[in-house]
Amino acid sequence: MKVVIDGEVRTLKAVWYEDDEVKLIDQRKLPEKIEIFEAKNSDDIAYAIKNMVVRGAPAIGVTAAYGLAMAKKKGENMDEAVRKIGSTRPTAYDLFKAIRYMQINDFDMNSARRYAMEISGRSRKIGEIGNQLIGQNARILTHCNAGALAVVDWGTALAPIRMAHGDGKNIFVFVDETRPRLQGAKLTAWELAQEGIDHAIIADNAAGFYMRRKEVDLVIVGADRIASNGDFANKIGTYEKAVLAKTNGIPFYVAAPGSTFDFSIKSGDEIPIEERDENEVLEINGTRIGPVESHSRNPAFDVTPNEYVTGFITEYGIFKPSELGKLKELMEKDLFMNIK
Amino acid sequence: MKVVIDGEVRTLKAVWYEDDEVKLIDQRKLPEKIEIFEAKNSDDIAYAIKNMVVRGAPAIGVTAAYGLAMAKKKGENMDEAVRKIGSTRPTAYDLFKAIRYMQINDFDMNSARRYAMEISGRSRKIGEIGNQLIGQNARILTHCNAGALAVVDWGTALAPIRMAHGDGKNIFVFVDETRPRLQGAKLTAWELAQEGIDHAIIADNAAGFYMRRKEVDLVIVGADRIASNGDFANKIGTYEKAVLAKTNGIPFYVAAPGSTFDFSIKSGDEIPIEERDENEVLEINGTRIGPVESHSRNPAFDVTPNEYVTGFITEYGIFKPSELGKLKELMEKDLFMNIK
Repeated sequence: MKVVIDGEVRTLKAVWYEDDEVKLIDQRKLPEKIEIFEAKNSDDIAYAIKNMVVRGAPAIGVTAAYGLAMAKKKGENMDEAVRKIGSTRPTAYDLFKAIRYMQINDFDMNSARRYAMEISGRSRKIGEIGNQLIGQNARILTHCNAGALAVVDWGTALAPIRMAHGDGKNIFVFVDETRPRLQGAKLTAWELAQEGIDHAIIADNAAGFYMRRKEVDLVIVGADRIASNGDFANKIGTYEKAVLAKTNGIPFYVAAPGSTFDFSIKSGDEIPIEERDENEVLEINGTRIGPVESHSRNPAFDVTPNEYVTGFITEYGIFKPSELGKLKELMEKDLFMNIK
Repeated sequence: MKVVIDGEVRTLKAVWYEDDEVKLIDQRKLPEKIEIFEAKNSDDIAYAIKNMVVRGAPAIGVTAAYGLAMAKKKGENMDEAVRKIGSTRPTAYDLFKAIRYMQINDFDMNSARRYAMEISGRSRKIGEIGNQLIGQNARILTHCNAGALAVVDWGTALAPIRMAHGDGKNIFVFVDETRPRLQGAKLTAWELAQEGIDHAIIADNAAGFYMRRKEVDLVIVGADRIASNGDFANKIGTYEKAVLAKTNGIPFYVAAPGSTFDFSIKSGDEIPIEERDENEVLEINGTRIGPVESHSRNPAFDVTPNEYVTGFITEYGIFKPSELGKLKELMEKDLFMNIK
């Protein structure tokens, strides 16, 4: 991903392995500063995932893969390492896919590198395929951050947007700020600003307003886990946007690599939903917003039923929810994805 | 409204007239502190409305009524005073209703007092009527603040909730935090905390999650302006909640006094929508959340079409959108409301 540091354009990944450490752009610090978090062992990896130094399902998977390879290299107890890293966040399927992949490959560092490279290459492919959906002057709405930060590079929902911009298409992105953690305002807007892509941050409340005014041509979001029937979990508020898109006749796409599809479950009812600390809602930048007497409820994800999905943009092509059987077959023939 | 100051329960109104000044609870300072804003002339009144020291359609109306009576008493040029106060905020109909009422009554202070008393009494009546809709163990979702702070006393959407609680019903309120200005988290939660009503603040994104889980029994919101056909304007995000309520089969009520109904317009298309400063989105408590390169769009209200409204809770009873002709007739027979 393109990053401008002190006026100089550099290329950075969200996660990489260097000097016996897993390096992560500390996503809690953006957009104020670009700080690198250095994970030296599986405890650091678990901390980074749990506390959202790194977030986004594919990036969590890559972090877990590198983390496990690093743990193995450093002689850690691997059952322990798997347990710690596997119990950080329950919703994103990529985490479990990456752990399984590393178990099969004996926690080998080259396998971790391959995992990262595959995910990055596949997100580029998602960009090429999704780009076909974006017309000249398209106005696209996205929720949360499904960008390079969430993947390693390119992004999922943002990959087609990057490609369309690279092709010289004139596009505009409505960025849902995405409370409570503001990944839209802080991360997606930052990525778009680095690339010089025209955009506006809006309160999550305003998405429906622009949809009803026909000022949004399509919605593209990422996913944390997609069930066999096409129900999918993504950042809280995604369901609201999906219902509003359908009500207003706006196409609604989900961009995700194969690693986010969980064909072991039938429907979204089986996806565990994480409830995070209430202070993520009650405090913003360390300042309390509500009365001291008040509590909050803070589900981190919601499930959107398949009926709201126009299509899944994957590295294998675009699939309607009813066509996921075909995707499953393709994944079974794909050596990298065919992990039982 | 009940307010606990230093452990002592006191009764306070959102707006009142005392010592030749219009006194307002400064709603920008809640819930951190209860500070009284003292408006000494029409400039102060215009400032207070424009900058949301006071907000909520009925409370804006009462503030304008007192403000004009004060301006008259102090010998101000009344054409100027009307122009200044009338050009503060375009959406809330009560503002224009109150100005017209005061013009007809020669800006008389007793008329302003009557206007405030009527609005307060009518919101109490809304509470009594709306209370019938709230069953034992009801879980109610509300958006923004349509409480005593938005009205003078009692509230509109919160009036039935206060009454139900007063009747000893066990109820629970989901409070949408209501970005960008957080009137839910800061004002509604504060009012509920003062009354000891059980509630949780949620990110606006989470409302759909709880609706889909059938954890919300009904939605009650306020309104800034209601058109003849039942389309209505209210705080940005209301439209989203209305669509989600309908999708999930949850009754959706709008509580408002007659002064919010604008029978001079046919539909919501004619309601002017205020767009406020982009920094309301980009900064929270004075800290910037997004990248410096990013801009925002900040519509303050949206319009919800009549098809999403189960009923309007008014001081005259509950009316479906298709029954607003009946309400209009009742208002024409009501000396206070029959202002042309």
